[in-house]
Amino acid sequence: MSGFYEKLTDSWKQQNSLLCVGLDPDLDRLPKSIKNAKHPLYRFNREIIDATAQWACAYKPQAAYYSAVGAELQLKKTIRYIKSEYPAMPVILDAKRGDIGSSARMYAIEAFERYQADAVTVNPYLGGDALEPFLRFQNHGVIVLCRTSNPGSGDFQQLVSGERAVYQHVAHLAASQWNKNNNVALVVGATYPQAIKEVRQIVGDMPLLVPGVGAQGGDLEGALKNGLTEQKKGLIINVSREVIFASAGADFSTAAANQAQSICRQINQYRST
Amino acid sequence: MSGFYEKLTDSWKQQNSLLCVGLDPDLDRLPKSIKNAKHPLYRFNREIIDATAQWACAYKPQAAYYSAVGAELQLKKTIRYIKSEYPAMPVILDAKRGDIGSSARMYAIEAFERYQADAVTVNPYLGGDALEPFLRFQNHGVIVLCRTSNPGSGDFQQLVSGERAVYQHVAHLAASQWNKNNNVALVVGATYPQAIKEVRQIVGDMPLLVPGVGAQGGDLEGALKNGLTEQKKGLIINVSREVIFASAGADFSTAAANQAQSICRQINQYRST
Repeated sequence: MSGFYEKLTDSWKQQNSLLCVGLDPDLDRLPKSIKNAKHPLYRFNREIIDATAQWACAYKPQAAYYSAVGAELQLKKTIRYIKSEYPAMPVILDAKRGDIGSSARMYAIEAFERYQADAVTVNPYLGGDALEPFLRFQNHGVIVLCRTSNPGSGDFQQLVSGERAVYQHVAHLAASQWNKNNNVALVVGATYPQAIKEVRQIVGDMPLLVPGVGAQGGDLEGALKNGLTEQKKGLIINVSREVIFASAGADFSTAAANQAQSICRQINQYRST
Repeated sequence: MSGFYEKLTDSWKQQNSLLCVGLDPDLDRLPKSIKNAKHPLYRFNREIIDATAQWACAYKPQAAYYSAVGAELQLKKTIRYIKSEYPAMPVILDAKRGDIGSSARMYAIEAFERYQADAVTVNPYLGGDALEPFLRFQNHGVIVLCRTSNPGSGDFQQLVSGERAVYQHVAHLAASQWNKNNNVALVVGATYPQAIKEVRQIVGDMPLLVPGVGAQGGDLEGALKNGLTEQKKGLIINVSREVIFASAGADFSTAAANQAQSICRQINQYRST
């Protein structure tokens, strides 16, 4: 088992949670008390992390929110904070990188060495050889976009070629070719529970990162029904805005904790039925 | 015509060149005299830019080389240098971004506001709605991956659905739906000259960014034959390593200039036949 698989499996168990909290700290939406502080994204994240750590199995900072405002340092500090305070918690850098040859290698170095993320999300459009530089980091997770949660994801992912849709081809290659180091996972949106079912059939127990619950209106129960493995695990259910912006006021961290607890319990309730 | 199309068209004409120089400053490959300087990537780029500006129609910094080593400031300084010294020269940020909703918007802000790039490369896998936040910047170019230059690009791009390969579906949507602001271009590798021909037939005069000439062994003549528009334009032929690392010694900038001149002339020779 790869370092990432092991860390994730341990976290699912120790935390008794499948909830991943997405750290998408849109500067415009931060509480007033934080917005004008030094390193506001980092300060916000720290409070969110401390408030939700009891209910989470992983954190997923979304790189775009840091890149747009030149806050690479705050992203780094956020990940360092998790590693120092909650060392058993996997950190997934949601960067959706995709490039070829030495550029792909540079992006792998960015995620795994510069930021010390445990896993990174990547885009499969460029093909298997473009994923190789990531896959080679065998103790790190490579989470490949398969069926994304947005309405337009069908434009290409759902085109049928042979007997399979493109996203099913992705799942097949992930299971049959890319996962030699047991470090691959796939992204399948909760907005497409049927796709979760089909992907689960293709990839066995491979972890699936499931975004789209909450603000995007994904189907949590459908995702669990179709995606849980026999051990009632296998899913990383990501919720971002619904948790971190549960309140815009001074009580934002308490509200985030309550929301995380509520989603975690909802998931566990389903798992125990 | 969008700001980007106009700037590019003017540059093709004024510079009498279709050559784009890729700024992929791998720290390990920089000349010794530069490697230990302050801001080595920026210093290297500046010398390369000054040496090649006469023969180039555009510059394309590859974001991964800056991200891997935490050199965002040097990327910014590089683009600022081009804008100040060669203001007519389009700058393409090669970042291959792709995300949904507000994350995509953040990446557009990163490219167009933070870095002030004229255009950015993006990945179509997530579908048309994920490109919207980029397309809305109507004076900026959105250069969508279509058929990439790497050997594995066929894994998904070449899957046939209906009567078309996936990359042809991308080209069709680019021409029929995404280009309302006349700011879309496509990436088609010189390693697949037949794909260039097919894409050209689909998209009319839309600009094509063509990587893969040089180190990757692409077919320059085939790319020109199949990709030039009737006006003998329409292509942004990118060369990176072959130019910027033409020499590893102290004469690196002269060597880069010679190489850029030679490729530019080779292209123009073909254009005049």
